[in-house]
Amino acid sequence: MGKLRIRHLLVAGGAGFVGSAFVRDRLRADPEILITVLDALRRPGAEADLDDVRDDRRFKLVRGDVCDRAVVHPLAAKVDASINFASEEFTGSGAADGPALARTDIEGTVVLLEAARKFQHQRFLLVSSGEVYGPLKSAANREEDRLAPKSLPASARAAAETLAGAYQASYGVPVVITRAATAYGPRQPVNQLVASLIASALNGQAVVIEGNGSATRDYLHVDDQVAAIARVLWKGEPGTAYNIGDGVQISGSELADTILDACGKPSSLKRLTRKGPGWSYGVDPRRMRPLGWDPLVRFPDGIRLTVDWYQKNQTWWRLRDVA
Amino acid sequence: MGKLRIRHLLVAGGAGFVGSAFVRDRLRADPEILITVLDALRRPGAEADLDDVRDDRRFKLVRGDVCDRAVVHPLAAKVDASINFASEEFTGSGAADGPALARTDIEGTVVLLEAARKFQHQRFLLVSSGEVYGPLKSAANREEDRLAPKSLPASARAAAETLAGAYQASYGVPVVITRAATAYGPRQPVNQLVASLIASALNGQAVVIEGNGSATRDYLHVDDQVAAIARVLWKGEPGTAYNIGDGVQISGSELADTILDACGKPSSLKRLTRKGPGWSYGVDPRRMRPLGWDPLVRFPDGIRLTVDWYQKNQTWWRLRDVA
Repeated sequence: MGKLRIRHLLVAGGAGFVGSAFVRDRLRADPEILITVLDALRRPGAEADLDDVRDDRRFKLVRGDVCDRAVVHPLAAKVDASINFASEEFTGSGAADGPALARTDIEGTVVLLEAARKFQHQRFLLVSSGEVYGPLKSAANREEDRLAPKSLPASARAAAETLAGAYQASYGVPVVITRAATAYGPRQPVNQLVASLIASALNGQAVVIEGNGSATRDYLHVDDQVAAIARVLWKGEPGTAYNIGDGVQISGSELADTILDACGKPSSLKRLTRKGPGWSYGVDPRRMRPLGWDPLVRFPDGIRLTVDWYQKNQTWWRLRDVA
Repeated sequence: MGKLRIRHLLVAGGAGFVGSAFVRDRLRADPEILITVLDALRRPGAEADLDDVRDDRRFKLVRGDVCDRAVVHPLAAKVDASINFASEEFTGSGAADGPALARTDIEGTVVLLEAARKFQHQRFLLVSSGEVYGPLKSAANREEDRLAPKSLPASARAAAETLAGAYQASYGVPVVITRAATAYGPRQPVNQLVASLIASALNGQAVVIEGNGSATRDYLHVDDQVAAIARVLWKGEPGTAYNIGDGVQISGSELADTILDACGKPSSLKRLTRKGPGWSYGVDPRRMRPLGWDPLVRFPDGIRLTVDWYQKNQTWWRLRDVA
């Protein structure tokens, strides 16, 4: 694709939910790719989740801290491009830890940017989130919109984007950024939004939606998300952010209904916590079209496929349920 | 002033140029204030620069890292408000160190925000910079303008602002922010913009201005800046940023001429490095008016007063010249 020659990729945070799906997809799609994953492996079960690719000679897993230059630089020296999935957002089970987010999400990004600059990487892809725009005001957010994050994890991602922009402006590091809709799919840890609801439904417990159920989000199957990330890495324009989503707004109430239906559970298990609509989020993905990407998995089908996976892999997620 | 009762202040980075001026001003202006300074004291001579207030029983200096919760929390537990001057921008003599900026400026801010939240500070003031807006497009920047920092230090400050906004939105921490014009005045280390030119002029060396000399900035005497910061701390509206500047744009060429004239040196010592206008910066300070603040020191007078100080205190700055 284009003039890039990316044969060896450094994937920071590549043992996480989306990161490991990206690694798996690339190894499957590209016979000549070499992938080095750097991951702190703090999420329970993270290491085991890469067992299926461990014997692939094109793949290497390094356990380490993304803020540690002594670890990052020798790895970065050998690759053509780097991509950063590393985030503190989902490593714990509780409330956001501000200083930990600042370290992993922001300082980690800067250490990787520094390495990308030093070793002249052809691309640096920062995986961000559609939540950096803050709650939806009217239409779905375009990339030019002002970033106005409300939550601490979204603020950390926005801050990492700001620093990446400075590395592009000051040193010409070829940065591309993805801002994705909420991901779901097989192997999502059950402390994350969609998987937690599926686990509750399969357990016959209440499926709890915050607010009155009318707030909407767009959801994207992890397979579609990682395909989009690959497109942006190989075909994206340096200095550009790309929204990734399917452009379909789903209310919290609809999400709960779809999950309960797919699990064969009664809709009476749906619980709405309180009055008020809550915050909606949505990104407009039209900038992805010229890159040749369109989402393939439609929302209700994706949920059904995902529920199937959780039904067949109960051991996987019950062992990893740290909540 | 108002309903605030701030008797004890934690001043992070209070041994720096602007921070120490703020501390000195408050001790002079407010007989009942208690001030605890937390500073890593990495700048050469930083500790000695607080010698004149060391014996004041209302003042305490703690050497420590602003990212270290074990240091910050016991200090934050005893105060009513906190203010963060700590930045990596001027601690070294060379190029910006991205990871160090991320740690000190961003993670440091978050650790302090976390403490301000835990110990219910009445105010958290983040000292930011007018450079967060990025280079001037047309009129001087207003606070509502989009932040588009180009340099690494300005990006770190913008990122710290983003996180402060999240602590306000998520946890109600009463954050106020100042975005100041370029500071100058007595005791400015000679690796910083204005002082470095004064030192060159006094040494009879070339006064070097980057670009063709036409790019402008607004400059503000440190006494005016710290008076404005105090106003914002006591009278500012939580959740609000305040531009601090005198609204007068000075070109690089004019800056060099003013300094050379004040030093009694020939204008032939002025050097312009290269073609092109370079970047201009400017903030519109009108939001400060209702807080009862106006700058008192006019630019050429301020430069003359400052040059006087550097002429009389040669030992001070020659000992601290790490460039």
